[in-house]
Amino acid sequence: MSVTLAIDAMGGDHGIVVTVPACCDFLEKHDDVKIALVGDAELLKQALSQFPNALTQRVEIVPATEVVLMDDPIEVALRRKKDSSMRVAIEWVRDGKADAIISAGNTGALMAISRYILKTLEGVDRPAIATAIPNELGRGTTMLDLGANADCEPMHLVQFAQMANVMVQVVDGTANPSIGLLNIGEEVIKGNEVVKQTSELLRQTNLNFYGNVEGNDIYKGTTDIVVCDGFVGNIVLKASEGLAKMMSGMIREEFNRSLMTKVMAICAMVPLLRVRKRVDHRRYNGAVLLGLRGCVIKSHGSADRFAYGFALDRAYEAAKNRLVDRIAQAFALEVKE
Amino acid sequence: MSVTLAIDAMGGDHGIVVTVPACCDFLEKHDDVKIALVGDAELLKQALSQFPNALTQRVEIVPATEVVLMDDPIEVALRRKKDSSMRVAIEWVRDGKADAIISAGNTGALMAISRYILKTLEGVDRPAIATAIPNELGRGTTMLDLGANADCEPMHLVQFAQMANVMVQVVDGTANPSIGLLNIGEEVIKGNEVVKQTSELLRQTNLNFYGNVEGNDIYKGTTDIVVCDGFVGNIVLKASEGLAKMMSGMIREEFNRSLMTKVMAICAMVPLLRVRKRVDHRRYNGAVLLGLRGCVIKSHGSADRFAYGFALDRAYEAAKNRLVDRIAQAFALEVKE
Repeated sequence: MSVTLAIDAMGGDHGIVVTVPACCDFLEKHDDVKIALVGDAELLKQALSQFPNALTQRVEIVPATEVVLMDDPIEVALRRKKDSSMRVAIEWVRDGKADAIISAGNTGALMAISRYILKTLEGVDRPAIATAIPNELGRGTTMLDLGANADCEPMHLVQFAQMANVMVQVVDGTANPSIGLLNIGEEVIKGNEVVKQTSELLRQTNLNFYGNVEGNDIYKGTTDIVVCDGFVGNIVLKASEGLAKMMSGMIREEFNRSLMTKVMAICAMVPLLRVRKRVDHRRYNGAVLLGLRGCVIKSHGSADRFAYGFALDRAYEAAKNRLVDRIAQAFALEVKE
Repeated sequence: MSVTLAIDAMGGDHGIVVTVPACCDFLEKHDDVKIALVGDAELLKQALSQFPNALTQRVEIVPATEVVLMDDPIEVALRRKKDSSMRVAIEWVRDGKADAIISAGNTGALMAISRYILKTLEGVDRPAIATAIPNELGRGTTMLDLGANADCEPMHLVQFAQMANVMVQVVDGTANPSIGLLNIGEEVIKGNEVVKQTSELLRQTNLNFYGNVEGNDIYKGTTDIVVCDGFVGNIVLKASEGLAKMMSGMIREEFNRSLMTKVMAICAMVPLLRVRKRVDHRRYNGAVLLGLRGCVIKSHGSADRFAYGFALDRAYEAAKNRLVDRIAQAFALEVKE
């Protein structure tokens, strides 16, 4: 079975400069992949001409005249830019011409247009954004929601857990993944009202519910999945990015302080690069928009060619393993039970 | 003016082993400090005997027969252990015998007993926990609430901002500190309902309200103060601790990998230690329980002698600068206006 990926080639901070080379790299690795590059046909043709014909013959250029900008309000992206590369790429999935769509564009717009074009799966009230975060165990902790739903009711969080449960089984191959509910610890009140109720509901499901976890458990890898609302999830993710950036900035600064420390930096290069590799967020690029009637993958806006490849990997694995069908089945069973 | 600090000498993971030496270090640095060590009189006497008389003559041993354990439920700590070192130390502040109380014990119990014994200030609905977090600018970002209030209404968050505003002016000496409201960014919905309403209320105050900030702004130091509810604050704090621990663990691991990398570690020691010093959470030890009729400082439970000293510093600065009176004044003005 071949997999066709529809690419919002114009999306993200870098657009074609990143998407086209990353797609060609990907085609080189996978014989069974076809790619639909959606965007400015002229520019795409030009960009593709740099790559060998053997690869580009598996690429179809799909013209789209508009681009959703990173700061476009959702309304503009959804209502006014009907021929955007993002939207046309999503339509390819709706029409069954592609198995997944990947975009590095505006997350809000991607979610809104995907919901509008693809619709949500039966039984899913709200789609959520899930991604893997590096942990001490060297695998990823899958966390959701990362910003699609700021206010959540307990039932929504339970659905997030159900969707992530399928995703981690299907894409990461982890049988019966453990699920933690993000909560606060020793402090005065153990959790807010929503979390308390969610905990009770999760105990009634047949999910492998571990119980509450705290912020540090994300990085410890205490559970395979960590569930929270999009407000908390987004803030934790951004705070982590900020802290990691601060720490690596300080390491750079201290090693750049003098000629002496620069020499030390050369000495310490190998272990420091190994650390960087282990926590390199680029290797974890590719968030999945779960709960839609189609496979939608969000790449980080600032992704480079290397990082974008990981988003393509995620899309490929999700499509090949029929993630959307599997989630639909899980929810159909749930409804029957 | 001399400052008297009441110490819950038994509290925390280490108790007397840490609190007594840290207090003696502190007495050595400050001629104007007296210390009331609350706890097991025999053990305290013994521990103090190791230190020179010149210091210990400024120490009073206050006997208390019980200890609040780290995992005691709040109800037990509050209702059953009426002669706990934590409670007796707090009573010293209530009775005007001490200017501040410091405890490394159970946070929930400390907050509950403090509220019960000291009461909250006029105009403050809910006390909050505030601490400084290291940022890229090399100063601390003051963040609150860190876990006292899981569910907050907009008015509570506004009060947190008002209290932190006084604290940062009085303790850190920052004039007109900027205040950010922790929110989510580009994603689908900009903030939850509580945050949206809080933002409007904050705009109506005379505080230096910067507007919304995202998780990474905590570490960028975009604003002097970051306000959020205790659920989000606690999770962000714990997640940050977890990430920092993971990263330093990985650095240690990579440098320990072989004889070669161990030699590299020696070469890289100086810059790496400098980085560690800059982000050393021990230097930021000492959270303030704001909004009470008395100065209550929470040290990290696992604080060592060095870290505990910073909590004492915080208590000393807060007491000397009459933090509680200044907050009371600010709220009195607020009510009059």
